[in-house]
Amino acid sequence: MTFKVFIFGCGAATPTLQHHPSSQVVNLHDKLFMVDCGEGTQMQCRKFGLGFQKISAIFISHLHGDHYLGLIGLLSSMHLLGRKQKLRIFGPPALKELVQINLELSATHLDYELEFFATNDQKKDLIFEDHTLQVYSLPLKHRVFCTGYLFEEKQRPFKVKKEAIEEYELMPSQILKLKKGEDIGLESGEIIKCSDVCITPPAPRKYAYCSDTIFQPELASLIQGVDLLYHESTFLETEKVRATQTFHSTASQAATIAKLANAKQLLLGHFSSRYRNDALFLDEARPIFDQAMLADEGLMVDIPYQPVH
Amino acid sequence: MTFKVFIFGCGAATPTLQHHPSSQVVNLHDKLFMVDCGEGTQMQCRKFGLGFQKISAIFISHLHGDHYLGLIGLLSSMHLLGRKQKLRIFGPPALKELVQINLELSATHLDYELEFFATNDQKKDLIFEDHTLQVYSLPLKHRVFCTGYLFEEKQRPFKVKKEAIEEYELMPSQILKLKKGEDIGLESGEIIKCSDVCITPPAPRKYAYCSDTIFQPELASLIQGVDLLYHESTFLETEKVRATQTFHSTASQAATIAKLANAKQLLLGHFSSRYRNDALFLDEARPIFDQAMLADEGLMVDIPYQPVH
Repeated sequence: MTFKVFIFGCGAATPTLQHHPSSQVVNLHDKLFMVDCGEGTQMQCRKFGLGFQKISAIFISHLHGDHYLGLIGLLSSMHLLGRKQKLRIFGPPALKELVQINLELSATHLDYELEFFATNDQKKDLIFEDHTLQVYSLPLKHRVFCTGYLFEEKQRPFKVKKEAIEEYELMPSQILKLKKGEDIGLESGEIIKCSDVCITPPAPRKYAYCSDTIFQPELASLIQGVDLLYHESTFLETEKVRATQTFHSTASQAATIAKLANAKQLLLGHFSSRYRNDALFLDEARPIFDQAMLADEGLMVDIPYQPVH
Repeated sequence: MTFKVFIFGCGAATPTLQHHPSSQVVNLHDKLFMVDCGEGTQMQCRKFGLGFQKISAIFISHLHGDHYLGLIGLLSSMHLLGRKQKLRIFGPPALKELVQINLELSATHLDYELEFFATNDQKKDLIFEDHTLQVYSLPLKHRVFCTGYLFEEKQRPFKVKKEAIEEYELMPSQILKLKKGEDIGLESGEIIKCSDVCITPPAPRKYAYCSDTIFQPELASLIQGVDLLYHESTFLETEKVRATQTFHSTASQAATIAKLANAKQLLLGHFSSRYRNDALFLDEARPIFDQAMLADEGLMVDIPYQPVH
């Protein structure tokens, strides 16, 4: 089952030749979710060959321009290119008004439905769910209302071995219990352990997007055991004071969150335009958390299942 | 004296790998004026090395996304990069509200003043003037309120030859008259013709931006003798019906306007993403108006003085 993150932009507020403003697409079981949509995102989709009509929902972290200014253009292009399918948009409460006023004043009619969901920046919230996955919003601390997002697979069922079904002549109700990971008792009094007759499914995978935010260690408990963490790393430790003043984080602080959260991998992004060499972020993060990587436009990160023990 | 047009985007509504949405900068006597500001314009400025802080005014034609969606990001970056100088913004009446709501909902404060001027889409209007130039808005016919823009130099003074000043012992008041192109009478009764003692200045140059608009021959009278005409050429004649339905023009119609206006050069732009080969626009326009050119991202068109006869 696919679980990938595709980076379209990982720069910060001012434009550079190196990076585009924030945007990425999460492919979770072949459902496409866009997270943030900075200016130029629709062109980045074209450049990297992502068919944006397949996106079923867009999650906006906050209303700073480098995180949402590509949204109106994308919505408009979706319409011009024939979209009929509903699009869900999650984000700050003011986002709905912002989108509607832009569409209204530019006399833009959309031939498909927009469904808005206002997030809450005070607590972790389940905001979307289907039979294979769940999406949570995460409370971030920035200068304005801001939420991160956590994408989680649901636990897949245990697979009951065919030989066991035949040997014990298992009934559907018994198989169902085993699939859930429960042991069962036979009429004979014998206990059949799930672990003896089933193949254990891999642990559900999780991806967390945390941008923009000041360093907040309490975030780690909300994303414990995450397979991949994208955490903003706007500054280096040399600009730690400025990071705090502007409610951003340093590479070192991002690595600390990854460590506290027992993350498997860390993807650093949202690099300030003041730095010319992204490798400096990695140099700062790796002594604290060695599975750190740098985001870059066009990068696709695959989130693998962890080996079952 | 500089008079140049720098193209940053000349595509139409939907994104392509070939073209960016509409934006250009007019350099008139080293004053920089931006005309339209589609999504990604600030990145295009970076790419082509244009320091956008030097822009003193922005002229928006209409509120379709491909003509204004880069504006908020550009305004925000101007602030983040330290702008203090006032910026004038000309455009449809609703533009002011659109900008203000976007800034307000994204909690963006600007450290410089924005001064808005609402254009009129019913008549040609003088909207800006200083000692060397004038800018007019032009009534265009599109699906929404839309104005073009005409940039004109003011007539430069005649230059009185030094020898004539000495020979006739000309007084300052007489020199002033000659500079204006008038003949003068000496006390002796002798008439001194301006054309005999002055160097004739070159004719003032004019540049017209006409996008987006349906074919309207009456536009030609408002831009007579223009040195360079940028006219939208969204479609080819094969899509003439669609051009009319959507209030756009074909390459052939753009060429007809250039011919009727006695333009010296025509720059075709706003190409629909349905065409893969821009040369087709040129093939269609040149039999009607042979001084036609294709706009392209990064193209700089110099507007030369015409030879004085």
